[in-house]
Amino acid sequence: MDHTLSPLEKAQLAFKPPLPLLLEKLSDLEQVPLDFSSQGDEIKSLFPKTFGQRGVHFIKGEGLKKQPPLKVGVILSGGQAAGGHNVIIGLFDALKAFNEHSTLIGFLNGPQGVIENQYKELTEDVLARFRNTGGFDLIGSGRTKIATEKQLTASLETCRQHDLNALVIIGGDDSNTNAAILAEVFLGKECKTQVIGVPKTIDGDLKNQYIESSFGFDTACKIYSEMIGNICRDALSAKKYTHFIKLMGRSASHIAIECALQTHPNLTIIGEEISFHNTTLLELTLEIANLIEERAKIDKHYGVILIPEGLIEFIPEMKKLIEELNPLLALHASKIDALPSGEKRKALLWPLLSQNAQELLNIFPETIINQLLLDRDPHGNIQVSHIETEKLLIATVRAELTRRGKAERFSPVAHFFGYEGRCGFPSFFDATYCNALGRTAALLINHGLTGYLSCLQNLQRGVDHWVPCGVPITDLLVLEERKGKRVPVIEKAFVDLKGMPFGRFAELRKSWGLEDNYRYPGPIQFFGPKEIVQATTLTLSLEHEKAPTTI
Amino acid sequence: MDHTLSPLEKAQLAFKPPLPLLLEKLSDLEQVPLDFSSQGDEIKSLFPKTFGQRGVHFIKGEGLKKQPPLKVGVILSGGQAAGGHNVIIGLFDALKAFNEHSTLIGFLNGPQGVIENQYKELTEDVLARFRNTGGFDLIGSGRTKIATEKQLTASLETCRQHDLNALVIIGGDDSNTNAAILAEVFLGKECKTQVIGVPKTIDGDLKNQYIESSFGFDTACKIYSEMIGNICRDALSAKKYTHFIKLMGRSASHIAIECALQTHPNLTIIGEEISFHNTTLLELTLEIANLIEERAKIDKHYGVILIPEGLIEFIPEMKKLIEELNPLLALHASKIDALPSGEKRKALLWPLLSQNAQELLNIFPETIINQLLLDRDPHGNIQVSHIETEKLLIATVRAELTRRGKAERFSPVAHFFGYEGRCGFPSFFDATYCNALGRTAALLINHGLTGYLSCLQNLQRGVDHWVPCGVPITDLLVLEERKGKRVPVIEKAFVDLKGMPFGRFAELRKSWGLEDNYRYPGPIQFFGPKEIVQATTLTLSLEHEKAPTTI
Repeated sequence: MDHTLSPLEKAQLAFKPPLPLLLEKLSDLEQVPLDFSSQGDEIKSLFPKTFGQRGVHFIKGEGLKKQPPLKVGVILSGGQAAGGHNVIIGLFDALKAFNEHSTLIGFLNGPQGVIENQYKELTEDVLARFRNTGGFDLIGSGRTKIATEKQLTASLETCRQHDLNALVIIGGDDSNTNAAILAEVFLGKECKTQVIGVPKTIDGDLKNQYIESSFGFDTACKIYSEMIGNICRDALSAKKYTHFIKLMGRSASHIAIECALQTHPNLTIIGEEISFHNTTLLELTLEIANLIEERAKIDKHYGVILIPEGLIEFIPEMKKLIEELNPLLALHASKIDALPSGEKRKALLWPLLSQNAQELLNIFPETIINQLLLDRDPHGNIQVSHIETEKLLIATVRAELTRRGKAERFSPVAHFFGYEGRCGFPSFFDATYCNALGRTAALLINHGLTGYLSCLQNLQRGVDHWVPCGVPITDLLVLEERKGKRVPVIEKAFVDLKGMPFGRFAELRKSWGLEDNYRYPGPIQFFGPKEIVQATTLTLSLEHEKAPTTI
Repeated sequence: MDHTLSPLEKAQLAFKPPLPLLLEKLSDLEQVPLDFSSQGDEIKSLFPKTFGQRGVHFIKGEGLKKQPPLKVGVILSGGQAAGGHNVIIGLFDALKAFNEHSTLIGFLNGPQGVIENQYKELTEDVLARFRNTGGFDLIGSGRTKIATEKQLTASLETCRQHDLNALVIIGGDDSNTNAAILAEVFLGKECKTQVIGVPKTIDGDLKNQYIESSFGFDTACKIYSEMIGNICRDALSAKKYTHFIKLMGRSASHIAIECALQTHPNLTIIGEEISFHNTTLLELTLEIANLIEERAKIDKHYGVILIPEGLIEFIPEMKKLIEELNPLLALHASKIDALPSGEKRKALLWPLLSQNAQELLNIFPETIINQLLLDRDPHGNIQVSHIETEKLLIATVRAELTRRGKAERFSPVAHFFGYEGRCGFPSFFDATYCNALGRTAALLINHGLTGYLSCLQNLQRGVDHWVPCGVPITDLLVLEERKGKRVPVIEKAFVDLKGMPFGRFAELRKSWGLEDNYRYPGPIQFFGPKEIVQATTLTLSLEHEKAPTTI
């Protein structure tokens, strides 16, 4: 294979992430129950076997006498996040440390690999080329859920066939809910395979009183902040473009807040704030247009605006429009597709739309109309995440500025920072955190637990002080209505408008609109001063200013 | 000012770029003529005063006895490139080293600042906040040319009013042509202000037998390569998207070649190759569609394709279409603008178009048609650089795959990497190179030269060995027809299809189409191993494999 490694990749492969003191010698640890317990009768009825387990953390103590060889399987589930490879490597190293005869297999391309029993054995040699690298390419990922009876049975069969002691699922909220279901089903069917989840998502919305941060958030925010800082500097140098930057992150606006704290753009839209104030698209448009006009008055014909990807779902009238369009699209799909232009498509639907919908569509540019009407998922629904919100806002703001006779020097540039942030080399934090998460997963397995999430606390302190924990997933579940059914889900953590990160942002942003206080974080550094290399997200440290260490 | 510096920015401000040995003690140097001389009678007639000057390089020698205080002005011209601040700082430090009473003023927002005498004094204190930073925000930049008689006279007046010993113009090919004209005019009018140019452009197309690289190219390519590497890893992990990545770089494809050598994408389009083979848009579409189909056969429904920004100008039929549309647009502008859709605009022009143009427009998506017809420059012409080539290719490739019944698993994602590469913190190479370029500019001024470019040779070797040179700009001029007039211009360096960088790329790419040999350069590092921090572009080192050191 003609894969020439870059000099940085060579250095990363040789890097040994430091370990939390408690994770150095795994066999010396004993578990201590955490000081909280599960609630919720409905969840209890769905998870009779695994409900009510206590959270645990580990301290130096007697440890386990006997360490039999284990066979463990692992899958990567959902969107990429930097550090996934290190979770697998931390798990592998720890399994081998417990017993050198333990083995690890990786199921290929996500949960589908378990269902179909597609896997590869993960050995020291295989893993050597993936230490501290980005991406999920070691075993691939996928978005299949193990949901139907048939899929559950197939997965059980696979685990039995391999005689797996445990299955580790590295994924986001849905994947970890899936882990809880599997743990329950396996116990019910007397299958010995324990199920352990690991919290992953760049979006930062998988966190709660136990999980301080999902992995990948740190690296993604740092990569986006590097680029946003560069764009801020470019805006200030060229003095002629207004940059509309959409940031990946499906629902919550954590990434937008973190990037704003890092780079101090002129305006940052926060989905949760829009939702709280019931801000309409017109109001949002006016706010942006006002800022642009105010800046133009002081001869600043440039600026930087951050837009969270999930914004569209937070704008009430957009939600309504989408709800109104979806059934119409299902009815007229083939006619709509056959028409030659957005204009004609709009005309076809026009008489069927409410006045509100008509007014909204009237301010949309043709590109967005086509995205709305043509880009449908397999169920015929509008793909909300495909809508180019940054271009929609440019169009509505331009229309407003034109109405005011102020559009002449408005030169917008649209960006979407997304894919480039998911697979970068993991930052020091993510590389170290993921390695420790993998090790903790091995610890939970060794202690015979199932239906638990691997977790570390005290993350805002130095690595030395991190505390390995296990959280029963059922503790995180709530019931939500999805497609007409009440189903257990891990509650997404939205931006807390009363929390410290938003509070600090809200305080600082007052001066950012008209003054240019841009901040330039620069690229992620892997060598050099500790305060550069080891810095965590501002979100993590601000959250700890309010909520001190739980343990 | 509430400008909180990031930890990396603080470190950068404190960094002292190493100096070439020859530039350590400036007063010890003497100039030696370089071994070549000017040609071209027409250029001679346009530049009677400055034509025929000899290039110089500097060696340790007697140096200059007297070092009077100098007053120098500096401007940044054209698009941003990382390292511009360091040129100014290198110039400042060297002027002060010659004589502590020397002063430097920066004209604001490009050449316009000279014309209008808008400036600020650059002192140690002012510059301290800009050492080793990206951007041109210290004094801003602009694209005005000092071209008309009136502008030339105003500039002369400004220089006389400040009693400037020299004016340093940091810019690309056009700006440096402008520097040559100013030098000639100033000499003719007995104005003492010497004019020195500094070669800047991220595009990498300002190079020749004297200039080994323009500054900013190194940093821009490294930033784009970081992102492309991340996208490659994402493609390989998710296994479902084909990424079409357009790269900034107006005409030449140097950036595309360098990024391809760094990241090994599945396909890289090179404008100069398209032009050489007279490749049509249809042929290019078939080539891409074929690759996607071949990859799909081996179950690879993903990939990464690099597209140079200048591509559109290299495709013969696109050139013709634009030539055909421009006069029609001028004639029908207001009617076209008033129509509600791309479809109707197309219909209006239809009977006026040649069959070739009709065929081409027929395969264009509505967005592109609107970009072509609506986005016109102040002269009413199509803005070629605004055309979203990446989306055009996605549309033509999708149409072709649909025709073949192979479009089902084609999920394209469009990217444009541009602005984020111009204002990053300069790489070690650019920071050091720019500092040395500024110092060399001071040296040329001190030696009484005018109409010269500041230049360093031996760049592929360690900084120690770099040799400061001065190149008469008239030596680089050729006459070209622009808007019906023959005017002097610095010849753009296009990708040499017989040169080493393209040769190596052409050899390596054979395996990149179907195999996935992606390479992950990662983010620019400022600390750590020399082979990571100090690595130059592969383009620079490959060019030197063929053409060894000139001195």
